[in-house]
Amino acid sequence: MRYPPLLTDLYELTMLAGYLEEGMAEKQAVFDLFFRKNPFEGGYAVFAGLEPALDYLEGLRFLPDELEYLQGLGIFKPRFIEFLREFRFRCRVTAPPEGTPVFANEPLLTVEGPLAEAQFVETALLNIINFQTLVATKAARITNAAAGAPVMEFGLRRAHGPDGALSCARAACVGGVRSTSNVQAGMVYGLPVRGTHAHSWVQAFPNELTSFRAYADAFPDSSVLLVDTYDTLKSGVPNAITVARELRDRGHELRGVRLDSGDLAFLSRESRRMFDEAGFPEVKIVASNELDEFVIDSIRDEGGRVDIYGVGTKLATCAGAGGGALGGVYKLVEVDGQPKLKVTSDIAKATLPGKKRILRALGTDGGMVQDVICLGDDDNPCGGDTVCDPCNPLQYTTIPADVTLHELRRVVMKNGCRTSHQEALDTMADRTALELARLPQGCLRHINPHRYKVSISGRLNDLRNRLIDQARRGG
Amino acid sequence: MRYPPLLTDLYELTMLAGYLEEGMAEKQAVFDLFFRKNPFEGGYAVFAGLEPALDYLEGLRFLPDELEYLQGLGIFKPRFIEFLREFRFRCRVTAPPEGTPVFANEPLLTVEGPLAEAQFVETALLNIINFQTLVATKAARITNAAAGAPVMEFGLRRAHGPDGALSCARAACVGGVRSTSNVQAGMVYGLPVRGTHAHSWVQAFPNELTSFRAYADAFPDSSVLLVDTYDTLKSGVPNAITVARELRDRGHELRGVRLDSGDLAFLSRESRRMFDEAGFPEVKIVASNELDEFVIDSIRDEGGRVDIYGVGTKLATCAGAGGGALGGVYKLVEVDGQPKLKVTSDIAKATLPGKKRILRALGTDGGMVQDVICLGDDDNPCGGDTVCDPCNPLQYTTIPADVTLHELRRVVMKNGCRTSHQEALDTMADRTALELARLPQGCLRHINPHRYKVSISGRLNDLRNRLIDQARRGG
Repeated sequence: MRYPPLLTDLYELTMLAGYLEEGMAEKQAVFDLFFRKNPFEGGYAVFAGLEPALDYLEGLRFLPDELEYLQGLGIFKPRFIEFLREFRFRCRVTAPPEGTPVFANEPLLTVEGPLAEAQFVETALLNIINFQTLVATKAARITNAAAGAPVMEFGLRRAHGPDGALSCARAACVGGVRSTSNVQAGMVYGLPVRGTHAHSWVQAFPNELTSFRAYADAFPDSSVLLVDTYDTLKSGVPNAITVARELRDRGHELRGVRLDSGDLAFLSRESRRMFDEAGFPEVKIVASNELDEFVIDSIRDEGGRVDIYGVGTKLATCAGAGGGALGGVYKLVEVDGQPKLKVTSDIAKATLPGKKRILRALGTDGGMVQDVICLGDDDNPCGGDTVCDPCNPLQYTTIPADVTLHELRRVVMKNGCRTSHQEALDTMADRTALELARLPQGCLRHINPHRYKVSISGRLNDLRNRLIDQARRGG
Repeated sequence: MRYPPLLTDLYELTMLAGYLEEGMAEKQAVFDLFFRKNPFEGGYAVFAGLEPALDYLEGLRFLPDELEYLQGLGIFKPRFIEFLREFRFRCRVTAPPEGTPVFANEPLLTVEGPLAEAQFVETALLNIINFQTLVATKAARITNAAAGAPVMEFGLRRAHGPDGALSCARAACVGGVRSTSNVQAGMVYGLPVRGTHAHSWVQAFPNELTSFRAYADAFPDSSVLLVDTYDTLKSGVPNAITVARELRDRGHELRGVRLDSGDLAFLSRESRRMFDEAGFPEVKIVASNELDEFVIDSIRDEGGRVDIYGVGTKLATCAGAGGGALGGVYKLVEVDGQPKLKVTSDIAKATLPGKKRILRALGTDGGMVQDVICLGDDDNPCGGDTVCDPCNPLQYTTIPADVTLHELRRVVMKNGCRTSHQEALDTMADRTALELARLPQGCLRHINPHRYKVSISGRLNDLRNRLIDQARRGG
């Protein structure tokens, strides 16, 4: 799928034209993509969207009809249109792999190269990374709540447009939700596809039992029956048990039932008991209906016996406090080797200037201790060093002596070309599970989580303070 | 843009296979698409997404690679794959035009035809209509708050995936937001594209004034300068005034400035005063920064002097109470001429059975008085008739005698073909503005709006009661 170059804000094009006009297009620039608050007021985010972003950057070309359209707008000079005809992305990109836990204020993507090119890709990168990271994070929270029970994504009908649903299924997989009802996502991304049937199936037959029999006839080895059209415990489950017996007599097994309304904790316990007593301990209980991490938490707290969770709307739309959108931004941090700062009245919103690295400090048990953002190449904070809070310069802390520091990011693109092969989604999902297990436990909490420490090195802090002073003096 | 047929929930395909297996594929069925709660806890919704939905229905074809993928899943019989190869949508579709105010419980789309076809399109229709109607409604609320000042959409960077942004720009236009920063949306939908520049433009130059001059050089007749990179009133506006003077000396005029942070009511008043005093009463004040209907209301309440509002995240993600997703559903209401009901323990959630029409009662002044949902062809409620609340059968009301009743919907597709040409987006946007002006004023309120009356006819109520009784007796 081509991400069209015109799927951008007009101002990226006008700025590009302006830089060209001013002879500034080839100045060397560095941009950072980061967010200022963890999504969902949570303790972490799961980075996602890198591969689609790299696809976009590698494939960035203006087609003749797109240039013709731009020409027709009447605001661009012919010289600029000709420039666009040959426009390619040749920058260097640094990023962590997808499935890495990341935090507010950390530069996720860093883009270095000619000002014109590095600026132009802002909107598309934000569009891709913001949404995929948001969904992967929501999916990780939901997976975490499910505590080992598989989660299926079926948010297509409430997703934001056709591709919102497709991006959602992909990013949900990075976060740990490894199957989907979305058949197109199954085809495009190789995800397992899953489904049951709708209430309308039951309504289309003279009665529920007939409808269950018909479905089991059609899919004798993969039937999951929806049992709440009339009454879950009085009608749905007993009818499903009848069909399970009939299937077994013919050498098949009912796969499961789906509960889609009512008190899911209670209904799942009762359904489990009824199936167990009838001799069907293998029949799976699937639960759905506006589930999210909080509802799943409460079902488990009350001893619910759900084997598989189906999540739709709340995942696809990333609902919840601090959800809906990840507020990622893309800021200029260096031009021509000169570090740049965007000052504001709020120190917490001042950008971190210059080219930077992120070091992740791991304890002797492999657990994540803290992250340190430091300057490019010759800034090497280590255990025992004093570092400070990027949002509160008065708050200092010391890197513990017994940690090892690891580079969080690597160069993923040079001269506009990928430096390695695409990763499989399952590899990313495995990484998410592994890396989240390294987090301090309290960071995984869904409400009022522990705040993972992200600090800036002394040298980065000094640079920022110097630039803030300069800006104040310069007015 | 093709909407792929596999962009659907797996269960639509398994049900289709099941209906085929059972010899039920050709049974005549009627489905209604409706929602149960107005979005944003508001007083209305603006119907949108019909034309993209009809595009999908007309173009519905399975391509060879899609069939091959389905075959490879191992759950479908070869006969079913062959059936899909010839699968077309041949149903009749009834709907209001886009831009029509609609309300909870009203059937928006009604699809009549062979059970297999009418069922299969459920997920895609919900995906398209839910999101477009949600965005059009949010856009109408924001437009309404802006009270005549133009609103620009620039939510691309926070939208849910690439196409989420494209669908958003289209639906926002239906709702009244008639320009966008999204260049692709401009090309695809013919929308006016607008933009300014980013903070990074200012940072890339030695100082703000130089950056403003450069931008004005590049776009002497269309410059809107972003004035909050350093300090809006001390630096940004004075520098913009300098550039406005320089432009005027060369025979051009500064178009406007954009305020993107701080107290927008105060800053817009002060900026207006400064430009007026400097002799630039025509320079437009554009405001942005997490705007929605509530923020715009408050800016206007405090005497803000904003000429143009730029809305992004809150529009593109449809943020806010009752937002994020429109909970549209698609329910079977008739099979083989027999009305069907989905009963639940909650009367408010029981579906409205049978084929139905919606009549809109207009007063002598053309204002909307109430809507009445009635049965198909021979149910003709009129002034003086008693009708009742669809969610509360104890609540009766009488249609006023002096109203005229108008059909809200028409047949838009017969045998899978459109019955008329596509409408222009501007026509839809004009309709939205005109029709919302007919609503009782209190329905437009953003918080605790007046609840517009939607009733069901006596005959429809009788039918529903009869079917509820039957279901109770039948168990």
